[in-house]
Amino acid sequence: MDLHGGNIYRLYREGKKDILDYSSNINPLGVPELFKNIVTANFNVLEKYPDPEYIDLRKSIANYNNLDINNIFVGNGATEVLFKYMQSLKPKKALIIAPSFAEYTRALESIDCEIVYYKLLPEKNFSLNVEEFTKNIPQCDLVILCNPNNPTGTFLPLETIKRLNNILKVKKIKFFIDEAFIEFIKDWQEMTATNLKDPNIFIMRALTKFFAVPGLRLGYGIYFDEELKPNLDKKTEPWSVNSFADIAGQVMLKDEKYITETEAWIEKEKKWFYEQCNAIHKIKAYKTNTNFILLKLLANTSEEVREKMLEYDILIRDASNFVGLDNQYIRLAIKDRENNTKVIEALNEVVR
Amino acid sequence: MDLHGGNIYRLYREGKKDILDYSSNINPLGVPELFKNIVTANFNVLEKYPDPEYIDLRKSIANYNNLDINNIFVGNGATEVLFKYMQSLKPKKALIIAPSFAEYTRALESIDCEIVYYKLLPEKNFSLNVEEFTKNIPQCDLVILCNPNNPTGTFLPLETIKRLNNILKVKKIKFFIDEAFIEFIKDWQEMTATNLKDPNIFIMRALTKFFAVPGLRLGYGIYFDEELKPNLDKKTEPWSVNSFADIAGQVMLKDEKYITETEAWIEKEKKWFYEQCNAIHKIKAYKTNTNFILLKLLANTSEEVREKMLEYDILIRDASNFVGLDNQYIRLAIKDRENNTKVIEALNEVVR
Repeated sequence: MDLHGGNIYRLYREGKKDILDYSSNINPLGVPELFKNIVTANFNVLEKYPDPEYIDLRKSIANYNNLDINNIFVGNGATEVLFKYMQSLKPKKALIIAPSFAEYTRALESIDCEIVYYKLLPEKNFSLNVEEFTKNIPQCDLVILCNPNNPTGTFLPLETIKRLNNILKVKKIKFFIDEAFIEFIKDWQEMTATNLKDPNIFIMRALTKFFAVPGLRLGYGIYFDEELKPNLDKKTEPWSVNSFADIAGQVMLKDEKYITETEAWIEKEKKWFYEQCNAIHKIKAYKTNTNFILLKLLANTSEEVREKMLEYDILIRDASNFVGLDNQYIRLAIKDRENNTKVIEALNEVVR
Repeated sequence: MDLHGGNIYRLYREGKKDILDYSSNINPLGVPELFKNIVTANFNVLEKYPDPEYIDLRKSIANYNNLDINNIFVGNGATEVLFKYMQSLKPKKALIIAPSFAEYTRALESIDCEIVYYKLLPEKNFSLNVEEFTKNIPQCDLVILCNPNNPTGTFLPLETIKRLNNILKVKKIKFFIDEAFIEFIKDWQEMTATNLKDPNIFIMRALTKFFAVPGLRLGYGIYFDEELKPNLDKKTEPWSVNSFADIAGQVMLKDEKYITETEAWIEKEKKWFYEQCNAIHKIKAYKTNTNFILLKLLANTSEEVREKMLEYDILIRDASNFVGLDNQYIRLAIKDRENNTKVIEALNEVVR
């Protein structure tokens, strides 16, 4: 399996240590202290099976999103939510708005679904023109959008999502929206597609990025289609969310201190990091709404830059294998100022 | 979802606290201290995605079982291993040797497989007669056996497994063996079906019971059929084992102190508990090879005993919904002497 996110484990096995991982978009504030303290005092939760209905967990997620517990489906990471949704819906043909997260393709392939891509264009800064898109949309069962989009960092406002969804509904096309990165957007509560409460839309979320816990495995789906529930239940294995992830969903989403600090950090840092990248000669940076940034290399290849950055012990994401991109593109995470400065300095040397 | 193991969470929600849970068969020694210490010092593992190939984890499991890393498939609890195996094999018709663990049925239903049951008989102490069984076996693709068997506590020695497998091979029937409880058997290393290294056999294991971590979610499959691997890989979602479970599989399986203490406890306690149960008038106890025991009530119903035991704050497993059993059966976990004594005393009162 050749996976996104750089597979830092292969580097470890090659003897590389102390790698600064800019290929994976994780909040640099790290695992929240409050969560660590609660886990340390509650190891005995592991001695019971998790609640098979995950009532407290789903309540906590519902509160965080101002929704009802019945709108919430939990899974072993966003990945399980994605796979289970696809297995429940069983689309025959799906359209992915690209470039985007590679797991959509894998999930659709696992159910033998035909896949078409609608490619966003670099010359339009990877923005989506709804009118043009919907005019050319082929007959299909499902459209998949990542918003904010990984790897481009673009974001469609709620008004646009609503307009797009209304057109899809007329064409009887379901709408899957991946909002794994939405909490990095200021006032995201007003921008999320959950506000539409539309049965046509399924929204995927995760604690992974914002709360810096990709190793913990907690994702969730938000849905308003009552007919979906029995299908999701049938496809779902019991106890798929582990007890520590169960605790995390009850503790982290209420951790105001961590949330406020993260919001302050990302607002400042995404602006600074974009400006620094753009100031580098021979690089075009795409404006980002979230905690990573897509860069176009004007005089180097992505392989070359990836290799050379490794000499500085920095791992970046060669973005050439995203559908719709090529070996002119790399993606960088945005982290704390100290490390961001190191990365900018190294990049300046490398593309010189 | 009405699940085995008693669903203690419903009792909690009804306001019942401090329940002694004898419905769930978990090692009373609890979460190993060594694991707690390592997790507490390594929360930052959560900040990375797990190794998608789980190399170190699979190596550790392979060492523990004297096998090669390529024989090991890891999953989010034994449940995921079970579901993924069924999705990969896609049997049209399967035979379950019953009474047994209810998840086999759920896993087979999820792939719309026809299910037949071969019922072991109480008058024969739920033992399996291989000759009689194989004489009457219908045409099918797969036989499922739990060994030691949940809930009967019976165990088939390796010689019998080998004989049975040889007959199944001739009939081109695959053999799935659930060994989730095998480590509670003395010298299990000599008794496990892995010794046969036969491509016809798939063995399921878990850390859940022996290491007291049902909340952690780590199971694994052992297989010798090279053709199975690409199918398992295609069905498997990346990062399905969380980072703490990944650590557990590397730490617990080498925790000699915990393993030795557990072996000493179970050898002593299963004998004592069986004798105590059998001494109760109006109960027949079935001899057990593992850390739970099946009891036949000679003068009460299982619902009645379950309700009355709850008045003593003890939750037991009403075993009436196992295929092949009825409301004369209950199952009890075996725990430490202090609690076992309480349970025996309460049971004595209840069935009087």
